[in-house]
Amino acid sequence: MSGLRRLVLDVIKPQEPSIIDMAKVLSNREDVEGINISIKEIDRKVENVKITVQGVNINDKEIFELIEKFGAAIHSIDEVVAGKSMIEHVLTLEEM
Amino acid sequence: MSGLRRLVLDVIKPQEPSIIDMAKVLSNREDVEGINISIKEIDRKVENVKITVQGVNINDKEIFELIEKFGAAIHSIDEVVAGKSMIEHVLTLEEM
Amino acid sequence: MSGLRRLVLDVIKPQEPSIIDMAKVLSNREDVEGINISIKEIDRKVENVKITVQGVNINDKEIFELIEKFGAAIHSIDEVVAGKSMIEHVLTLEEM
Amino acid sequence: MSGLRRLVLDVIKPQEPSIIDMAKVLSNREDVEGINISIKEIDRKVENVKITVQGVNINDKEIFELIEKFGAAIHSIDEVVAGKSMIEHVLTLEEM
Amino acid sequence: MSGLRRLVLDVIKPQEPSIIDMAKVLSNREDVEGINISIKEIDRKVENVKITVQGVNINDKEIFELIEKFGAAIHSIDEVVAGKSMIEHVLTLEEM
Amino acid sequence: MSGLRRLVLDVIKPQEPSIIDMAKVLSNREDVEGINISIKEIDRKVENVKITVQGVNINDKEIFELIEKFGAAIHSIDEVVAGKSMIEHVLTLEEM
Amino acid sequence: MSGLRRLVLDVIKPQEPSIIDMAKVLSNREDVEGINISIKEIDRKVENVKITVQGVNINDKEIFELIEKFGAAIHSIDEVVAGKSMIEHVLTLEEM
Repeated sequence: MSGLRRLVLDVIKPQEPSIIDMAKVLSNREDVEGINISIKEIDRKVENVKITVQGVNINDKEIFELIEKFGAAIHSIDEVVAGKSMIEHVLTLEEM
Repeated sequence: MSGLRRLVLDVIKPQEPSIIDMAKVLSNREDVEGINISIKEIDRKVENVKITVQGVNINDKEIFELIEKFGAAIHSIDEVVAGKSMIEHVLTLEEM
Repeated sequence: MSGLRRLVLDVIKPQEPSIIDMAKVLSNREDVEGINISIKEIDRKVENVKITVQGVNINDKEIFELIEKFGAAIHSIDEVVAGKSMIEHVLTLEEM
Repeated sequence: MSGLRRLVLDVIKPQEPSIIDMAKVLSNREDVEGINISIKEIDRKVENVKITVQGVNINDKEIFELIEKFGAAIHSIDEVVAGKSMIEHVLTLEEM
Repeated sequence: MSGLRRLVLDVIKPQEPSIIDMAKVLSNREDVEGINISIKEIDRKVENVKITVQGVNINDKEIFELIEKFGAAIHSIDEVVAGKSMIEHVLTLEEM
Repeated sequence: MSGLRRLVLDVIKPQEPSIIDMAKVLSNREDVEGINISIKEIDRKVENVKITVQGVNINDKEIFELIEKFGAAIHSIDEVVAGKSMIEHVLTLEEM
Repeated sequence: MSGLRRLVLDVIKPQEPSIIDMAKVLSNREDVEGINISIKEIDRKVENVKITVQGVNINDKEIFELIEKFGAAIHSIDEVVAGKSMIEHVLTLEEM
């Protein structure tokens, strides 16, 4: 039981397969409630995308392997939520 | 069962048929709950529009074919949501 | 059954009849749930207004004819929503 | 049955009577659910105010006469909502 | 029955008594549901504060007298709401 | 019965004791429902913090004494809410 | 009973272990309802992250020790909430 509820990943992928194909495969897993893939930037050969995975007890290793099977590289893990409830990060006074 | 819940498409279309005609045809499908077509830019001969398709198990291939039948070209797929629940992308601290 | 739920129209109209008169007539239709007319710009002889029509199975042809009967011209159709549920357009990462 | 639900008026008024007096009188009508008067700008002799009237089947002619009885002038009608439900104007992509 | 639901007042007050003392006294009235006093600017001898009074059938004359008893001056009445329901002012397209 | 529901205080405190210690002690009072302490600025020896106290019939004198016992100084009282319901200050048109 | 409901921590950590590993361990505690770890900045050897811990009667000492066991340093405590209900800090007029 990983307790993981959300992963936000910054990913570089080749243009094929499309983000539709990736979303279909990732959302098909038991530990995934839903997936959002948004384009950040399109270059000539690669796309920089943000993948938001939400679920209960997400298996992060298997998710990473699946993403890498598409020829994609995980550039950074930008946000992680874990625990009994979904916690959003709070904007502090210094960040406003 | 594609699991697809939302597609956000950046589309270039001729001025005719209108976005009203496109919305009517696309929303008439069984796998489409609703459709929003918004104008991004109007040029002399073509319009750049954003098409947001929401549904359950959207058949992306058929949607694409329908759009192309209108003489329109899908310029990019900007966001995809798939799975049991609708997931919005989260603004990370670096993007704020 | 057009399936149309919302039309957002950019309209140029003479100063008379007023937007109150237009709203009264348009909202009186069976296929219209409600109407919002907002002023975008007032020139000496004409007004540029945004008309938002919401309803179920809106008859776009008749709406257009009604608007034109007021001596107004539809400059552009800026947004269309159709289908079983009202879909808002989603701000993509590139638009943020 | 006018079907009018909201009027947003840009009004120039003398400093007396106050916006409190105007709000009391306008809100006392049967066709008015509520009224908001906000100051936009105070000049030496006059005030520029925004009057938002909400109700059911608002009688616009009588509202206008009441406002003018206070010595005020309606500079422009900025927004009108009519029909069975209250419709907000939608920000289009071009306006964002 | 004044029908007044909200008054927003721009007030200049001496530093003593404090906004805590003013809030205690004003909120103690039968016609006041709640009161918010926020500091806008602190000068050497006076404070510029915004007082938001909400209630049902607020007695504006008595509220004004109470505020002036504290040695404060009402600089302007910035917003008034009256009627059966609380109406917020709507941002018009020209104000956006 | 003070009727006080919220105090927003601008406070200068030494770095020790921490804001965690202050929050624990302040939230332990019967008249306090909850407390939020946010850092505004950290200097070498002191911290500038914003303390938001919410409760029912808050005893402001005792709260002030408690804060000063920590070696902290109340720089200003920025917002006060009192009465039967929590009232937020409303942004006026001139402040937008 | 600490009464602590939320801690927002500014933390410098080595790149390994990842924020996923930290979130798993921290969310596993009885006093933690949920945890959000967001990347603020990635340097060559270290990452600057914001950790938001929410729970009931959070044991701050043990949380700090756990974070430090990962080789991370708590740079500052940016926000603390304690008490019976979760209180958000309010933007004052001067901060707007």
